[in-house]
Amino acid sequence: MKIRLEPAPVRGFRFAGVCAGLRNEPGRKDLGLIAADWPVAAAGVFTSNRVKAAPVIVSQERIRRGQIQAVTANSGSANCFTGKAGLKLARDSAAAVAKGVGCVPELVAPCSTGVIGRVYDLAKYRAGVSDAVAALASDRLEDFARAIMTTDTHPKMATATLKLGGAEVTIAGCAKGAGMIEPKMATMLAFVMTDAAVKPPALRRTLARALPQSFNAITIDGDMSTNDTLLLMASGAAGNRALAGRDLLAFEAAVAEVSAALARELVRDGEGATKLVTIEVRGARTHADADRVARQIANSPLVKTAFFGCDPNFGRILMAAGKAGVALDLDRIEVSLGGIKLASRGALHTNALDAAAARMKESEFGLTVDLKLGKASARIVTCDLSFEYVKVNAEYTT
Amino acid sequence: MKIRLEPAPVRGFRFAGVCAGLRNEPGRKDLGLIAADWPVAAAGVFTSNRVKAAPVIVSQERIRRGQIQAVTANSGSANCFTGKAGLKLARDSAAAVAKGVGCVPELVAPCSTGVIGRVYDLAKYRAGVSDAVAALASDRLEDFARAIMTTDTHPKMATATLKLGGAEVTIAGCAKGAGMIEPKMATMLAFVMTDAAVKPPALRRTLARALPQSFNAITIDGDMSTNDTLLLMASGAAGNRALAGRDLLAFEAAVAEVSAALARELVRDGEGATKLVTIEVRGARTHADADRVARQIANSPLVKTAFFGCDPNFGRILMAAGKAGVALDLDRIEVSLGGIKLASRGALHTNALDAAAARMKESEFGLTVDLKLGKASARIVTCDLSFEYVKVNAEYTT
Repeated sequence: MKIRLEPAPVRGFRFAGVCAGLRNEPGRKDLGLIAADWPVAAAGVFTSNRVKAAPVIVSQERIRRGQIQAVTANSGSANCFTGKAGLKLARDSAAAVAKGVGCVPELVAPCSTGVIGRVYDLAKYRAGVSDAVAALASDRLEDFARAIMTTDTHPKMATATLKLGGAEVTIAGCAKGAGMIEPKMATMLAFVMTDAAVKPPALRRTLARALPQSFNAITIDGDMSTNDTLLLMASGAAGNRALAGRDLLAFEAAVAEVSAALARELVRDGEGATKLVTIEVRGARTHADADRVARQIANSPLVKTAFFGCDPNFGRILMAAGKAGVALDLDRIEVSLGGIKLASRGALHTNALDAAAARMKESEFGLTVDLKLGKASARIVTCDLSFEYVKVNAEYTT
Repeated sequence: MKIRLEPAPVRGFRFAGVCAGLRNEPGRKDLGLIAADWPVAAAGVFTSNRVKAAPVIVSQERIRRGQIQAVTANSGSANCFTGKAGLKLARDSAAAVAKGVGCVPELVAPCSTGVIGRVYDLAKYRAGVSDAVAALASDRLEDFARAIMTTDTHPKMATATLKLGGAEVTIAGCAKGAGMIEPKMATMLAFVMTDAAVKPPALRRTLARALPQSFNAITIDGDMSTNDTLLLMASGAAGNRALAGRDLLAFEAAVAEVSAALARELVRDGEGATKLVTIEVRGARTHADADRVARQIANSPLVKTAFFGCDPNFGRILMAAGKAGVALDLDRIEVSLGGIKLASRGALHTNALDAAAARMKESEFGLTVDLKLGKASARIVTCDLSFEYVKVNAEYTT
């Protein structure tokens, strides 16, 4: 399936992104709104951090019912560690949206991203909601995607179209990321809309299947946000027959691919990232083993700085694999970078290092570790650790 | 007790550090030797990484017997992922030392640090051992400490003297670290010698008690070396009565303090480190909870870059605490930096941020997180994440 990294209208949804002045950056969009033409089926996953922002608590509760009509998302403040006042603020913000789009408050999911420990100005928020409601249009997903950016350098969008249940169906989504990214349930903020008719339980299953290969298979810095939210919404405007069997599988696959494309874009635009690296661990005894080894490699600062320095540093890769606590057989393990074998049968191929270093100059490459102990595998997409990551995070207050 | 960050003679031991040409850096010391005048009591702890270097495997086996007469340690090659040839190399290296100092090979513990996947030249090593044996002297601990340095910017040594069992006793040690530092059993390489008479089981207990507060309570980058080794050796030359009761406790405390001083020096000289931060988590339900929260904070790249940027970024500290998976009560948690309260009772003290930022300009400060849920606590010493860490590790092949 062809995934296009661009926005698309999704029948049944309208979008807006406006400048509400929440970030004190004149002209910068900071309030986004997604409004469905009627209550739509919805499913969501949220951060597993023990610290959850107020809007996460509110949205998590509301999404459980399987139905939503609007999503409101702001940047500039995470509305996290804001106590009861923060919960009230999230509910009041959603209420303003409910009034604007004409639905009950319980059908509005609020989301926030930005600085922790600070609230935003409700009056400004309400004024922004009025502007956003007035601006709602089916072709403004990009405006919404821009409004939720923090240290992201560009908006991230992905679209798929396919034929399902007798109808032409669109799946389009957007996400924001950049830092504090090692979701264990979702990513910072990601929204995927479809005009297909899909019931909430099927949506939940679809999300559960899409996650392991997309938002849960990436890491930028190993840090997990307090505001991670992923919502999947289906308007049913495409008029397809109820999805079942092969059609449902095709829908699930399409959502997974759109999610994976958005997740890759998050990593590509990770704070300071200059390289996108897909780490695949094969030949493990269990998927959990493979996943643990892949994450240790992906999150090792020594491995990440070696990626940045174009250094095919086998020793660091091996060190990181070893600290996963998974049994390894050093005489069997095989490590390849960009298809070039760095080590096998207990020996380092020193004559391959120059070619591997040259391969690492490219902006994207793969690293494969074959444990040769079993049949399970796992894949994690990550980026390097550069001067710019330090610069961005030593200077920016999140 | 007063710990001096300097070397001292320890009766019963002689030291040497020579340039054996193993690193191809003319004039740079790369081979260190510790020789006891007779077989001495010894205890050791080693890396818990599943990938263990050849010398670790050999030394671990030998130290188990509780007796050692010499330690040989080289930089420039970790002798790790070197298969059977590496094991033979470690044994042959130790055998050369045994011949030089006049003991059986089983009484020699070999150690290595440096690049993984490469062996060193045995002929050069043997020639270096001859030079080292000729150079052995009781006042050359600093030469030894220099020979084991990799990205360390200076040698690390610590000394304590105390009266025990009717005798004046010296405890002196040295260590090397700099990167790949989150030991879970020991640190890169650390050696502590004493002239006290202590039996191997008491030495083992002493090490086990010293570890949690010293080498196991530090992290530079969360990466765990394949070569971590900590050895404690007691010559008995002080002629003290057998240590028991209060004397044994005093000895244990002194070893713990020397170890903690060395561990702090490792962090202070961590790759690119500009700040030493002591993270204390209090009020946890269990020590394991406190330790988990402290480590998540200490290893979070977002927290570490905020340290570097002198940014009292409460949100990142909270995020890192939350991802430890330990239950938190946001209405109770209290966070202080350098004695300045950043947050308490569910509120961020924004008016304290300027003072905290000023405090962070100092090279050393504390961060205290009180969970207010129980009585357990844990302390981890860490450093910041700076441009220099990225530079060192993007350019240096370990």
